[in-house]
Amino acid sequence: MISKNEIKYYSSLLLKKFRQQENKFIAEGSKVIDEGICSGNKPEIIITTVPYYESNRKYFESLQDFRIETVKSTEFNKLTDTKNPQEIISVFPYAINKFTIKKVSGNISVYLDNITDPGNAGTIIRNCDWFGITEILMSEESVDIYNPKVIRASMGSIFHLKIFDDTSVDDLIKLKINGYKIICSDLQGEDIFNFDRPEKSVLVFSNEAHGPGERILQTADHIISIKKKGKAESLNVASASSIILALMTK
Amino acid sequence: MISKNEIKYYSSLLLKKFRQQENKFIAEGSKVIDEGICSGNKPEIIITTVPYYESNRKYFESLQDFRIETVKSTEFNKLTDTKNPQEIISVFPYAINKFTIKKVSGNISVYLDNITDPGNAGTIIRNCDWFGITEILMSEESVDIYNPKVIRASMGSIFHLKIFDDTSVDDLIKLKINGYKIICSDLQGEDIFNFDRPEKSVLVFSNEAHGPGERILQTADHIISIKKKGKAESLNVASASSIILALMTK
Repeated sequence: MISKNEIKYYSSLLLKKFRQQENKFIAEGSKVIDEGICSGNKPEIIITTVPYYESNRKYFESLQDFRIETVKSTEFNKLTDTKNPQEIISVFPYAINKFTIKKVSGNISVYLDNITDPGNAGTIIRNCDWFGITEILMSEESVDIYNPKVIRASMGSIFHLKIFDDTSVDDLIKLKINGYKIICSDLQGEDIFNFDRPEKSVLVFSNEAHGPGERILQTADHIISIKKKGKAESLNVASASSIILALMTK
Repeated sequence: MISKNEIKYYSSLLLKKFRQQENKFIAEGSKVIDEGICSGNKPEIIITTVPYYESNRKYFESLQDFRIETVKSTEFNKLTDTKNPQEIISVFPYAINKFTIKKVSGNISVYLDNITDPGNAGTIIRNCDWFGITEILMSEESVDIYNPKVIRASMGSIFHLKIFDDTSVDDLIKLKINGYKIICSDLQGEDIFNFDRPEKSVLVFSNEAHGPGERILQTADHIISIKKKGKAESLNVASASSIILALMTK
């Protein structure tokens, strides 16, 4: 049994303020939940609707180590921000890292510079996970990594990566001490097809409407560009990230 | 002045059934509307809210050749499917093409195979427009190109391209007569970095959950693949399209 107060408590985790206070977040959908568990995270609770539970009894048997509660659809809808939810959510503990230069060790890391759109942030995280990048630094202005839309768009990849939040441009600059080069992408810059990646790189992906901030541009060791051949005014930042990641991990 | 009946009529265009009946669609946001007009399309009407009109008087002066109507926010909300609309919509005539093999003439065309997610479809269209692809063939099962979410995600690129709807696999096969090779992307296939594009190609992008249909795979002259280096189960189809388009138009 789950009480009304508990549902109220868990639904508060849809808001950043309460997530940060409680250090917990909601993951929706069985695929994302499975990725969380397989990556070694223990869900505090799994909440589902009665019909979903009835149709997936075998699946829930595999989850019997965890607390599972069924609720009515009207109650369930309080735990999701989508109109057509997947009828199963789980609550996981935060697994976010605070930046120190020692903790960043991969040959390629990715920095999200003011990426405010949750769909783009989630897709970039998924792209990183496809191309074997394991460290993602988020600028202070970027969307909260535990926003439900980010988690959905990441398709569970959020559980595979080491994510640093509130990473400043000053932090980025500190990485240069350890030999990292800052690679920023912009409308003007070296053609990505002629660019050889330095051994240790931080790839910066910036807000598509505003472009890279002035300070990032000054800090960058290289500015690279995906050349336009048609009429579109800009390239979606998640799509740009996949091209850059593909070429840099070739 | 705009009557309640007119608002009711235009709001019906949010539904595919009525769009197809009337051969008109709604484009939201000044950027998309500008792209439509600059590409030679004449809006039947532009509808905005009173505050938006007041704050953008100069902009509306530039649109004085067209019928402009202001409405209250409550009325305006009937004309959009978003919670936070951009407060300006316009109605344009359909500009869709019916497939014939003669009409397809670019060295590279793109075929959307069962792309049902409007955000993905719009982003692929925008990617095509960035890389100078001008012909897009949509399978019968793909999302309606005039779905408001497709138009928003395309960021106006929809107006730059020649789009063929209801294109069947049989139509695709007919293109082979004119020397086109069908290039399909899948989880297994030739590594895209070792692949030389044939001179005349149709690039097929398939539904990311279901992959390419059996018939498409049988029809394909080449199956290419973006190799996975990390843990993600799949790559977002719009992100995959940008990598393939970048490499094929290099």
